[in-house]
Amino acid sequence: MIQASDFKTILDQYKIIFFDAFGVLKNYHGLVPGIEKTFAYIEQQQKEYYIVTNDASRSPLQLAESYHKLGLHAISPDRIISSGMLAKEYLDLKVNNGIVAYLGTNNSAHYIDSSGLHTLPVSAINYTNIDQVNAVVLLDDEGFNWFDDLNKTINILRKRTIPAIVANTDNTYPLSGNNEVAIAIGGIASMIESIVGKRFIRFGKPDSQLFMFAYDLIRWRLDITKKDILMIGDTLHTDIIGGNKFGLDTVLVLSGNTLPDDAEMRIRSTGIVPTYICKDAVIG
Amino acid sequence: MIQASDFKTILDQYKIIFFDAFGVLKNYHGLVPGIEKTFAYIEQQQKEYYIVTNDASRSPLQLAESYHKLGLHAISPDRIISSGMLAKEYLDLKVNNGIVAYLGTNNSAHYIDSSGLHTLPVSAINYTNIDQVNAVVLLDDEGFNWFDDLNKTINILRKRTIPAIVANTDNTYPLSGNNEVAIAIGGIASMIESIVGKRFIRFGKPDSQLFMFAYDLIRWRLDITKKDILMIGDTLHTDIIGGNKFGLDTVLVLSGNTLPDDAEMRIRSTGIVPTYICKDAVIG
Amino acid sequence: MIQASDFKTILDQYKIIFFDAFGVLKNYHGLVPGIEKTFAYIEQQQKEYYIVTNDASRSPLQLAESYHKLGLHAISPDRIISSGMLAKEYLDLKVNNGIVAYLGTNNSAHYIDSSGLHTLPVSAINYTNIDQVNAVVLLDDEGFNWFDDLNKTINILRKRTIPAIVANTDNTYPLSGNNEVAIAIGGIASMIESIVGKRFIRFGKPDSQLFMFAYDLIRWRLDITKKDILMIGDTLHTDIIGGNKFGLDTVLVLSGNTLPDDAEMRIRSTGIVPTYICKDAVIG
Amino acid sequence: MIQASDFKTILDQYKIIFFDAFGVLKNYHGLVPGIEKTFAYIEQQQKEYYIVTNDASRSPLQLAESYHKLGLHAISPDRIISSGMLAKEYLDLKVNNGIVAYLGTNNSAHYIDSSGLHTLPVSAINYTNIDQVNAVVLLDDEGFNWFDDLNKTINILRKRTIPAIVANTDNTYPLSGNNEVAIAIGGIASMIESIVGKRFIRFGKPDSQLFMFAYDLIRWRLDITKKDILMIGDTLHTDIIGGNKFGLDTVLVLSGNTLPDDAEMRIRSTGIVPTYICKDAVIG
Repeated sequence: MIQASDFKTILDQYKIIFFDAFGVLKNYHGLVPGIEKTFAYIEQQQKEYYIVTNDASRSPLQLAESYHKLGLHAISPDRIISSGMLAKEYLDLKVNNGIVAYLGTNNSAHYIDSSGLHTLPVSAINYTNIDQVNAVVLLDDEGFNWFDDLNKTINILRKRTIPAIVANTDNTYPLSGNNEVAIAIGGIASMIESIVGKRFIRFGKPDSQLFMFAYDLIRWRLDITKKDILMIGDTLHTDIIGGNKFGLDTVLVLSGNTLPDDAEMRIRSTGIVPTYICKDAVIG
Repeated sequence: MIQASDFKTILDQYKIIFFDAFGVLKNYHGLVPGIEKTFAYIEQQQKEYYIVTNDASRSPLQLAESYHKLGLHAISPDRIISSGMLAKEYLDLKVNNGIVAYLGTNNSAHYIDSSGLHTLPVSAINYTNIDQVNAVVLLDDEGFNWFDDLNKTINILRKRTIPAIVANTDNTYPLSGNNEVAIAIGGIASMIESIVGKRFIRFGKPDSQLFMFAYDLIRWRLDITKKDILMIGDTLHTDIIGGNKFGLDTVLVLSGNTLPDDAEMRIRSTGIVPTYICKDAVIG
Repeated sequence: MIQASDFKTILDQYKIIFFDAFGVLKNYHGLVPGIEKTFAYIEQQQKEYYIVTNDASRSPLQLAESYHKLGLHAISPDRIISSGMLAKEYLDLKVNNGIVAYLGTNNSAHYIDSSGLHTLPVSAINYTNIDQVNAVVLLDDEGFNWFDDLNKTINILRKRTIPAIVANTDNTYPLSGNNEVAIAIGGIASMIESIVGKRFIRFGKPDSQLFMFAYDLIRWRLDITKKDILMIGDTLHTDIIGGNKFGLDTVLVLSGNTLPDDAEMRIRSTGIVPTYICKDAVIG
Repeated sequence: MIQASDFKTILDQYKIIFFDAFGVLKNYHGLVPGIEKTFAYIEQQQKEYYIVTNDASRSPLQLAESYHKLGLHAISPDRIISSGMLAKEYLDLKVNNGIVAYLGTNNSAHYIDSSGLHTLPVSAINYTNIDQVNAVVLLDDEGFNWFDDLNKTINILRKRTIPAIVANTDNTYPLSGNNEVAIAIGGIASMIESIVGKRFIRFGKPDSQLFMFAYDLIRWRLDITKKDILMIGDTLHTDIIGGNKFGLDTVLVLSGNTLPDDAEMRIRSTGIVPTYICKDAVIG
């Protein structure tokens, strides 16, 4: 088993740092204490960073503002890569016209607006417009009536032979600090996929496409290879296996999903092995 | 491939008939036309019948009344065996005290009331009584707020190490006549089971325990074997594979879930082979 | 959490005892030390016992002899109930003629011989007789060439619309004492089922049918209910959940599959809760 | 439903063509008749092509030679992108020393040789060298004894906490022209993954990483976007959903896996919708 390592010693070996957001930069209490020192060091050392997140509920601009409010001013929107951006790219490239029906908040939907497409909540689909629906996008677990709209989503997907896109692969997300969780849209998506028996298109870690999206933004500017990039995350089955598969070195931090007492057992039982393990992503 | 057979010729070979309910006796338009003639013939020939159903939303008494209202007066409550009865037997045998929290209508819950147990909807569970919850039972898709109560169910099952019982294995059920479906509690159960990572206890076809329950009611009265029983159903993956596995001869009828044009393809693709295929369970 | 209990105190509360075999009566070193005292006590107290096992590789007679050789003479063949007996019952009731093709040893095959059926190893099936194959039975992981015969099995099941029966639900079994395992026929069956996309019929714990088979042998002789029966096993996802679901009280013993240090964590993570936990099934 | 389209009209709209191999360029009878005309047209029109294949059993050089022997001389090795190349990249980037144990032929193994790593068949692993095994790679279904080496693979993965890499996601492959299939290494990998309970790393369509690998080889040379690329394949759940998800326009051809009579039903039941459907990839 890899021993817990000194975070700064690791950081010094890489030019580019990919961060997961929740569990690495912040948790339900706010910022991870001291994380601003890490970003100050990155800036001082002229390293580059990207935040690679499965959170598709808000735009990069809104996500950056949420860090600013917490006091982490170093984060800029152009450094935030979310699975929602891939959902938007898919719609831009592959769906040319008609209605995109979504499950989620207005906020999340605004974000996928694409020229030529009419974005409507699933609740607004009825017999007069169902034949114009050319894609269904599952964005967020809030913003709709579960009973009405999950049942309607199933019947839309039974009637229409169209792609269903899921912008979040997580089954649950943590609630504020009491060890409770909430069902995420990824968990709902799996139920609907199983019931309608169709194959959904999922964006988000551990899928390579999100890492590639970030990688593409850097390498046209800088002369780097995958060897120069470090992925930092708190979750084995998204951040770590995804980073490993894309060919990146990976750090598992113990400030989020994976508790210090469980890390070794979880690594052994899943076979997902990070390059390093650190207490957190804070420079001491 | 087995050819479509004459239903009366088949019926004449068996002493005991097990019927599935929906798709065999009734559909969303009402009774299957002519089905009362089948029950008249069964009575005249002194055969016995049981209705073996995954419908746990109502008691046998209420289910029998629903047939009487439709005009089928031959059905008596003691001949209706539902998966909800197995859920109740489980609670009687295995849960001795405390609270049973349920998802479903008041109707469905009344049905599982067991002496010594306090039956409460999931919505009534909070930090003052969660430690008394000794079982969770998933009964029906109606009667609760999905967003609030599915999220609460997950957190009850994360906190308490207790059995979760599902009294219906179906993922969906048909809505009235327009080819639309609704998500059944079995589909919701699969999502919750996958999210909490625990093993639920499921009653209902194709599981043998429901067939056994009916079989046990007959054989103490009559000198019969499994060879004397015919199972009639409209669904390959519940009625037919369940009946086959229990050792019964089976009839697939084409008056419900399995359409005449699809029957052969579905049998071939699933490998679930009924002993006979009939248009319906009506004596011509 | 239920505390580890005194085995004798528990035993005294029940009239009928169901034992799992491997991990309860014996392990790869031989008999569990002292287990003969338990059987002497059962006899003295005029309790009844059954051994309920997923081992379909040998007949009850051969299984009983294996205990005698180890020095446990109390075991008689008529008290051994195996999943192979259910496979045989299925063939007797449901397959009337033609060839039953099997994967397994000659020994395991002899055991399912049924009047009117021709039992042949999969290796003996070819274009001249494939059209007579009316069932495939998966019995054991030994006795055939995996590459040749697994590939042939898949093509038989693609060509013929017939039932496939699996007489063992385990994925692996332990090898002699070095913590290594071997792939069991249940694991192979899952691969084939997934590749051909058909539904197999599985017998063996946790399925209720094996418990019912044992229960039926007792209750015509004795006036008992499920409340009088205790199921003892070392595996949560077969012995314990199966016993619980059938309505029996259950003991998890820590002399086999479930290690003392893991028991509590496994119970919590699976939600499968035994009525009692004991070190072993030995009367101290 | 999209109507079958004229292949040449489609081809004229794109600068870069990605071809699947089996079912598009060749089948078990040899080359798809007339396919050489397509490559002549591509060359004449100064379009570029890549062959994007899940076949990891041979190197690009060997694969190209197999086309030359069949009479298709236009194929050059540098235009063949296989999932095996991604497995090799993974080993280069992520496994620095020790032994890579493989399942497959010598041929397939030679192909993943990486500097600093010692490549050995699983059969050569024993108690003297198991502690040096730092990765397991599943390459091909031939070249090893299934019984011995699949059982050994499971025990290596139980003992060592190391990555397992699968260079082929297919469950089966077709045998010569008689409608029979053989189990592919992807099907074996799923069984082993399920038995050991660990997460394997899979390369190959529908995963985006293979498409990205091809895309990266073009765009440093040519000023193109994803809109300029057409993916041609015969399989919905690899070629088409993979191409769609990566953002490419896709053609389903009916010269391989998907039969003309089944295409519409399969598209409807899976929800995987190609941009176009063509009889084959031949210019008429």
